[in-house]
Amino acid sequence: MSQFWSGIVHELTPYVPGEQPKVQDLIKLNTNENPYGPSPKVIAAITAEATDALRLYPDPNSERLKTVIADYHGLSAAQVFVGNGSDEVLAHVFQALLKHSRPLLFPDITYSFYPVYCGLYGIEYEAIPLDRHFEINIHNYDRPNGGIIFPNPNAPTGIPLELDKIEALLQKNRYSVVVVDEAYVDFGTESAVRLINTYPNLLVTQTLSKARSLAGLRLGFALGHPDLIEALTRVKDSFNSYPVDRLAEAGAIAAMQDVDYFEAMREKVIAARDSLVKKMEAIGFVILPSGANFILAKHPSIDGETLAQKLREQRIIVRHFKKPKRIAPFVRITIGTELEMAQLLKAFTFIVST
Amino acid sequence: MSQFWSGIVHELTPYVPGEQPKVQDLIKLNTNENPYGPSPKVIAAITAEATDALRLYPDPNSERLKTVIADYHGLSAAQVFVGNGSDEVLAHVFQALLKHSRPLLFPDITYSFYPVYCGLYGIEYEAIPLDRHFEINIHNYDRPNGGIIFPNPNAPTGIPLELDKIEALLQKNRYSVVVVDEAYVDFGTESAVRLINTYPNLLVTQTLSKARSLAGLRLGFALGHPDLIEALTRVKDSFNSYPVDRLAEAGAIAAMQDVDYFEAMREKVIAARDSLVKKMEAIGFVILPSGANFILAKHPSIDGETLAQKLREQRIIVRHFKKPKRIAPFVRITIGTELEMAQLLKAFTFIVST
Repeated sequence: MSQFWSGIVHELTPYVPGEQPKVQDLIKLNTNENPYGPSPKVIAAITAEATDALRLYPDPNSERLKTVIADYHGLSAAQVFVGNGSDEVLAHVFQALLKHSRPLLFPDITYSFYPVYCGLYGIEYEAIPLDRHFEINIHNYDRPNGGIIFPNPNAPTGIPLELDKIEALLQKNRYSVVVVDEAYVDFGTESAVRLINTYPNLLVTQTLSKARSLAGLRLGFALGHPDLIEALTRVKDSFNSYPVDRLAEAGAIAAMQDVDYFEAMREKVIAARDSLVKKMEAIGFVILPSGANFILAKHPSIDGETLAQKLREQRIIVRHFKKPKRIAPFVRITIGTELEMAQLLKAFTFIVST
Repeated sequence: MSQFWSGIVHELTPYVPGEQPKVQDLIKLNTNENPYGPSPKVIAAITAEATDALRLYPDPNSERLKTVIADYHGLSAAQVFVGNGSDEVLAHVFQALLKHSRPLLFPDITYSFYPVYCGLYGIEYEAIPLDRHFEINIHNYDRPNGGIIFPNPNAPTGIPLELDKIEALLQKNRYSVVVVDEAYVDFGTESAVRLINTYPNLLVTQTLSKARSLAGLRLGFALGHPDLIEALTRVKDSFNSYPVDRLAEAGAIAAMQDVDYFEAMREKVIAARDSLVKKMEAIGFVILPSGANFILAKHPSIDGETLAQKLREQRIIVRHFKKPKRIAPFVRITIGTELEMAQLLKAFTFIVST
């Protein structure tokens, strides 16, 4: 607390990211990183860019990267906005497109950064309860709003929402922006990108942190009608002209272009997830259906906090959320390598049997 | 314009950075980049960090980098905030520390991003005219305010403000934050960092873009009392948990640690500036006294816009500001290599003689 703080600072409740442990010998399944490194072409592109040219500012508009992302998704560069991780992109989305007189709607169990952004920008919101299956029921969003946002698949549930339901939401909300946060979409959830040319009120956000193994590089993007992109660009150009550095742009271009590597890695993660789910169910776990690189799982005889703690004792870290209460019985587990999943399963077998 | 835009977006007038030309064979003296590349140790550190570890998020608090910056400046890590370029750091400073009921004060001729931030965050401000020598007169800041910010040396004038005057400002404004934006301080201006432990209302911002040749890496920082740093951290953690990527943190650490290289490069730039000034004065130019890696110069017989255009015809780009009117007769010239300065001087000699 300080007399020097702007009024807003006193009221902020910042987002708390998952722990980045300083020790090395942990199995880290707590922040949904990819267990496999990025494409070797990414490493090569970054190394090639690490030259005296770092003395020069990057392209403030990241035009080359925008073009590569647009090509990948069958869009034009004017339909692409890029930023320093999808968290930064989302921050601009909240400020530029989601602050209106009517409240923003999002699920009560979802990415916990959403209410934080609302606090930062003074945006009113209503948290819409997930149904008893922890699913988004689009009929509950049939109320006056200044925007709708949800992750697809949702986090931390991992449950996907079908595309026809997203389309119904878009049709019912022609006067507000519907943001589909597709951070985890590449692990088996259908993307809404193909609806972009039909719905000017649709904005899709994606990241290179998950399926493209680049959480450490910070690159996210938004896709939508050029009018929506222009709003984001205006805010970005009033905040930081150069959010994407030279190395990040070069690495991201290589990552988007190496489609074969991307496909191979996400298939491995999906296969590991499906295998893990079966084996965990066999020892009594209840697991929500996941279209992501993580699962939300509980065991009937051990509460979530205890489970996370007992795993930690075995040097495995997962994420436990005390709030909202409905997910407190669960732990969120990132899908790792086959070896890591075998070690996790061994730990679980030990824990449930003692 | 779009119905989907938040109200604020309609009113924004974004900052316009200097051109980043796509063609290669220009002498680029328009965005105050360093003519020399970063330390070879920076390149080595980045290359060493370009590994599979990029799949993992960076340290959200950049603790290692904060410690290195703190050590360099004789402060503690709790007195350091880091961000994705000093533009991002300044954005957080405006939102976290400079929005109050009384207006923010800054010079009428200064970094043109300041009024843009005010627009983004709804901050009232008063632009205080520079005196007739284009200098900051601290007595003009003796009025009710919710904060004061200015670059030292000022931009685009290049003129430094003496430390005793900054100290007088700090003493007169004990209830508001005085931000000294030291982007260009390393080129011969005295830093206010040594006042930090005496004045809890002082915040100093610096960047690795200029003297440390890393405009392409995006790393800026703020130094001040831990209470001020906490406000910035709260805003940052409500905006983007991980603004500094793994490569930027590694490169920045190496840059801060290679003091010898830094000293040698800034000395070269200072020597080139002092030599250029003498030679330009000899052919009739009027140049404001510079403590930066750029000069603001005019010629009695050629207006600034024409001068910039004639240089462009000779494949040299400098920056011309149409507004404010008082600096329209000038051009701002970044100090380049000795060879570039020789070519510039040749071009000037040709231009003034025809």
